[in-house]
Amino acid sequence: MDRILLKSPATIANLSCGYDIFGICLEQPYDVIEIQKISSKEVVINSLDSPFSNIPTKPKENTGGVPAELIISDYSLDFGFEINIKKGIPLYGGLGSSSATAAGVAFGINKLIGKKISQADTLKYALEGENITSQTPHGDNIGACMLGGLVLVKNIDPIDFIKLPIGDLYFAIIHPDVKMDTQTSRKILPKTVELSLAVKQWANVASLTFGFVSNDIELIKKSMVDHIVEPIRSKLIPGYYDIKRIALKNGAIGCNISGSGPSIYALCENKKKANNIVKAMEAPLNALSINFHSYISSINHQGIKVIQ
Amino acid sequence: MDRILLKSPATIANLSCGYDIFGICLEQPYDVIEIQKISSKEVVINSLDSPFSNIPTKPKENTGGVPAELIISDYSLDFGFEINIKKGIPLYGGLGSSSATAAGVAFGINKLIGKKISQADTLKYALEGENITSQTPHGDNIGACMLGGLVLVKNIDPIDFIKLPIGDLYFAIIHPDVKMDTQTSRKILPKTVELSLAVKQWANVASLTFGFVSNDIELIKKSMVDHIVEPIRSKLIPGYYDIKRIALKNGAIGCNISGSGPSIYALCENKKKANNIVKAMEAPLNALSINFHSYISSINHQGIKVIQ
Repeated sequence: MDRILLKSPATIANLSCGYDIFGICLEQPYDVIEIQKISSKEVVINSLDSPFSNIPTKPKENTGGVPAELIISDYSLDFGFEINIKKGIPLYGGLGSSSATAAGVAFGINKLIGKKISQADTLKYALEGENITSQTPHGDNIGACMLGGLVLVKNIDPIDFIKLPIGDLYFAIIHPDVKMDTQTSRKILPKTVELSLAVKQWANVASLTFGFVSNDIELIKKSMVDHIVEPIRSKLIPGYYDIKRIALKNGAIGCNISGSGPSIYALCENKKKANNIVKAMEAPLNALSINFHSYISSINHQGIKVIQ
Repeated sequence: MDRILLKSPATIANLSCGYDIFGICLEQPYDVIEIQKISSKEVVINSLDSPFSNIPTKPKENTGGVPAELIISDYSLDFGFEINIKKGIPLYGGLGSSSATAAGVAFGINKLIGKKISQADTLKYALEGENITSQTPHGDNIGACMLGGLVLVKNIDPIDFIKLPIGDLYFAIIHPDVKMDTQTSRKILPKTVELSLAVKQWANVASLTFGFVSNDIELIKKSMVDHIVEPIRSKLIPGYYDIKRIALKNGAIGCNISGSGPSIYALCENKKKANNIVKAMEAPLNALSINFHSYISSINHQGIKVIQ
């Protein structure tokens, strides 16, 4: 096998009250990544034409280049890789764009070299890639992208990711075209939180876990409350609470910031509702004359998918 | 119906990483409470002979007296109650002794007046009773005592307690006879916690929830880690880490402080293991010449039980 073509999906990290622990994998949007063995022991990255093609192509600056170079070195490969990336996931959008590249490349190269790398190590290589953009790897994007479905990051070192059952729900997602990077968005969070607030948060984490596992929509609905991160990060997103209010008014189960933002997702019971809700969520951004991309997506239970 | 006799059970609050949110109901130990209608509109409390009979009998100072008086007033009853309490649960032990009285009396009186009080209101009366000892009602003892099984305190006001599924596990419990009251034990906790530590805690809360719901012993085992409360409160319990080490060495699934201490519980797979583990846990206290009570108990899925 000398060539692989795959779809590496967008993911929502920090799902509601589950800051740094809950990640979920989407069907839409996604990147298409082609990886080809080449005879020279190097990594060549090309960014194919797309609305989000403005990515670094030097391997050490690209979240896919880093794992590729590490694997070549760690496994003493006598060949290299040409990696062609067609981005479908907005950059700096809070939809796991850098993770999709990192996880897609680590996953794809592992296939190309005959699955020599354990799942835990593949995740580690992907986290190394993500490191260059976020500095503190949190794993909820990488885990969800690689494993699919709803992933609980129980621990990062050693890696302990747990796949939680979840029903066939839908997401309405809106990505306002405002610049926000992961590092700034982490810096504004406080270093400490009130114990009483942390208790409220983990009560919601427990009931949201039980809600997902038992597919109890009412329980999911009342548990999707984030006391800690949303009140702070929402300030960076123009029109956030208007968009949230409209999503809930139109029947969303819950609505929060995706990853470190600025994307906003609404969890919906079915495709029809997701369609209506995403349209409603666009209005406040139109009123503010802010450009955006919007998506609806089912849950991707599989994660990265091999096309060829 | 003029008289009711019931068993009001001990409970473990703050179960592992679930500080203030997870309570679990035990079969052993328990209080026996007899409530009798009397013609005078008053509350008379008698403490029957037991090793733990040293409880206040003035209604306003007794966690059962408070709900009894409130109910008489709120429901304009033209009669009163004589309440005879035979304590089987150690006082100030961290085993929900005051909650057992509060919940038992509220539950029993509701039966005596023809179940006029909703479950939520019965819980509220019990919480009012508990208030006089803890000042900040947390609900995990009251909820577990009244509802049985494993209870998640999602919210206190308005009351939202969720019963989580749990398998037929056992507890080995040891109550060192050292004085520790709930208020002191709450005061030594910090008002704030590091966000990074809170994240670790809610990762464990999520995986412990999934572990209990799916009865996955290995997952329960690795999730029973408390980063926030145990490191602080354990200092107040002589020999705590020796007892914990011995319990785990002897096959306990997990071992932590019960409620606000000083009782220590070990979660065990079956009765035989619980028997062996509780004996092993006694050794460090014997070595320190500290008196103790020890118990083994299955999970009480029902809660308060009417005897007559």
